[in-house]
Amino acid sequence: MSRFFSKKYSSLSAYVPGEQPKDMKYIKLNTNESPFPVSEHVVEAAAKGAENINLYSDPECTLLREKMAKTFAVGKENILMTNGSDEALNFAFMAFCDKDHPIVFPDITYGFYPVFAELNFLPFEQIPLGEDFRIRTEDYIGINKNIVIANPNAPTGICLTIAEIERIVSSNPENVVIIDEAYVDFGAESAIPLTGKFNNLLVVGTFSKSRSMAGARLGFVIGNEELIKDLNTIKYSTNPYNVNRMTAAAGVAMLEENDRRIELCRQIAETREKTKTALEKLGFFVTDSKANFLFAKSEKISGEKLYLEMKKRGVLIRHFSSPKIKDFNRITIGSEEQMKIFLDKVEEILKEI
Amino acid sequence: MSRFFSKKYSSLSAYVPGEQPKDMKYIKLNTNESPFPVSEHVVEAAAKGAENINLYSDPECTLLREKMAKTFAVGKENILMTNGSDEALNFAFMAFCDKDHPIVFPDITYGFYPVFAELNFLPFEQIPLGEDFRIRTEDYIGINKNIVIANPNAPTGICLTIAEIERIVSSNPENVVIIDEAYVDFGAESAIPLTGKFNNLLVVGTFSKSRSMAGARLGFVIGNEELIKDLNTIKYSTNPYNVNRMTAAAGVAMLEENDRRIELCRQIAETREKTKTALEKLGFFVTDSKANFLFAKSEKISGEKLYLEMKKRGVLIRHFSSPKIKDFNRITIGSEEQMKIFLDKVEEILKEI
Repeated sequence: MSRFFSKKYSSLSAYVPGEQPKDMKYIKLNTNESPFPVSEHVVEAAAKGAENINLYSDPECTLLREKMAKTFAVGKENILMTNGSDEALNFAFMAFCDKDHPIVFPDITYGFYPVFAELNFLPFEQIPLGEDFRIRTEDYIGINKNIVIANPNAPTGICLTIAEIERIVSSNPENVVIIDEAYVDFGAESAIPLTGKFNNLLVVGTFSKSRSMAGARLGFVIGNEELIKDLNTIKYSTNPYNVNRMTAAAGVAMLEENDRRIELCRQIAETREKTKTALEKLGFFVTDSKANFLFAKSEKISGEKLYLEMKKRGVLIRHFSSPKIKDFNRITIGSEEQMKIFLDKVEEILKEI
Repeated sequence: MSRFFSKKYSSLSAYVPGEQPKDMKYIKLNTNESPFPVSEHVVEAAAKGAENINLYSDPECTLLREKMAKTFAVGKENILMTNGSDEALNFAFMAFCDKDHPIVFPDITYGFYPVFAELNFLPFEQIPLGEDFRIRTEDYIGINKNIVIANPNAPTGICLTIAEIERIVSSNPENVVIIDEAYVDFGAESAIPLTGKFNNLLVVGTFSKSRSMAGARLGFVIGNEELIKDLNTIKYSTNPYNVNRMTAAAGVAMLEENDRRIELCRQIAETREKTKTALEKLGFFVTDSKANFLFAKSEKISGEKLYLEMKKRGVLIRHFSSPKIKDFNRITIGSEEQMKIFLDKVEEILKEI
């Protein structure tokens, strides 16, 4: 920290993203990326977008929002596009929370929520998950605070039903409820249809996971027009041209391949269930994940040791040091072939210890 | 504003970017873009970057920073890459300013500075330009506040000498001085070499202007390693993967074409001087701009009217409603051909009124 760094941030601890090795020699099962590259159609669209990068991108992302509106059956005034969904979340924290409007979220969830709260000096409360690592809906009913819930939750992968989400949203009419659906396409149900019914609901989505575009940085928010206008006030006070031309063009092309996306999600879900069964056979406890990752622990090996042993063998998985989940690992579901290698290495490690 | 929007932002007025028509039928001389598309080499690099967008981008932008380090003769630890230079500026406002460390800037300058200050609840002071629209260096000597100065300044295009900047930086050793060099390559001198000498100097740059990449969103900060670390704390608390793969790859390719860039900047400067002379012949007062735009007014026509008449004729220029500069227009320097059309239209309009 330099002597110029503002004291207001002296206790800020930044988010630590999963390792991003540059040499590509690892099998990367640590940051929940898609193992499937985008199609030639999407690459071509991005290249086409690059031809005009001497001109600013459209700050309104008009074409992309029109396509999004059709895809999600909402109005284009209900959509904001962002530079990844982290930006969407940060904007929502900024717009709707303050000292009189704290935000609550589960104590085990996406690690960026407390960071956004600290960055913006917002009071926040972390509500413990149940013993079974499930979000207890009743804890959020009529809580009268802003809420952010990842559905499915990370890193557990466990999801709420849409009825549970509706109960939470409807019981907190004076507060904004943000549902972070980064992983929704792998087996949970989207709350987007509820945004027409509730003016206090925001659904945050991303192109990083089921749409294979983590490296393009494209996120979105869907909600009531008035809420989206507020988010635009923040956007236009932060970075009006937040989405670049290549990403916007790639996004449009990606939305034209919905069938391919659905098929790839089906494959991931299938591979997930097979991997889960195999891990259980090896004695692991595995949560009921509906995401593109598994959350698993074994009595035979600590989460940290499994992470380190896997890394030695060229496979990156995620380990968290937080006490409640330090026994676990989060394992991204890659291709069938990658998961076979992963399982072989797990067996090998368990035999050696 | 929705009833959920935080009161803390009730007086926030967002930045209003220049018009971005979607139909491309206008000659765009309103947002200081480059009239020259990027080369095939850059487009190909972006397309290559798109092939791996299923994987997150490198949050450290290692390759790009290595190339930047060579280009600017600094260490890679002295560089932060951002999603456009607006993000860089916002990060710097966040990191180094607070209620005890206000920021000062000229009253006529980039319109985003007061927005960043308001967004982050930072006290700020606007120091009037001299009668001649010049920044008066002496106003900033030993002011003992954080400072941001655009050099050349916008929308006047007038620049400070490097000796003047050094006096400002050295006389405020307890404060951070940010030099915003968005337009530096068209005729001003960069303060980057001073960053090795002063640990309180940050230079912000962009690929949007002289590097023809406004639509790719790529900005940077160069400064003392400790300051860059602080900015990284903000970045990793905001959007760790802020630069996408296509933009990073295009950036690397762009840095390989330095000779082309220098030649195109020379062309812009030449066209600027010709256009300036022509406007002066038509009776305009034109500031001594070293940027890729001119700032001009005429006794014969108001700034607003010229803007509207030009728009009717298919040419977009920029008009600002702020009282001190409402008589002026800011005119981006496009290609020779575009400026010829612009000048023909000006003559036509002046004859008609």
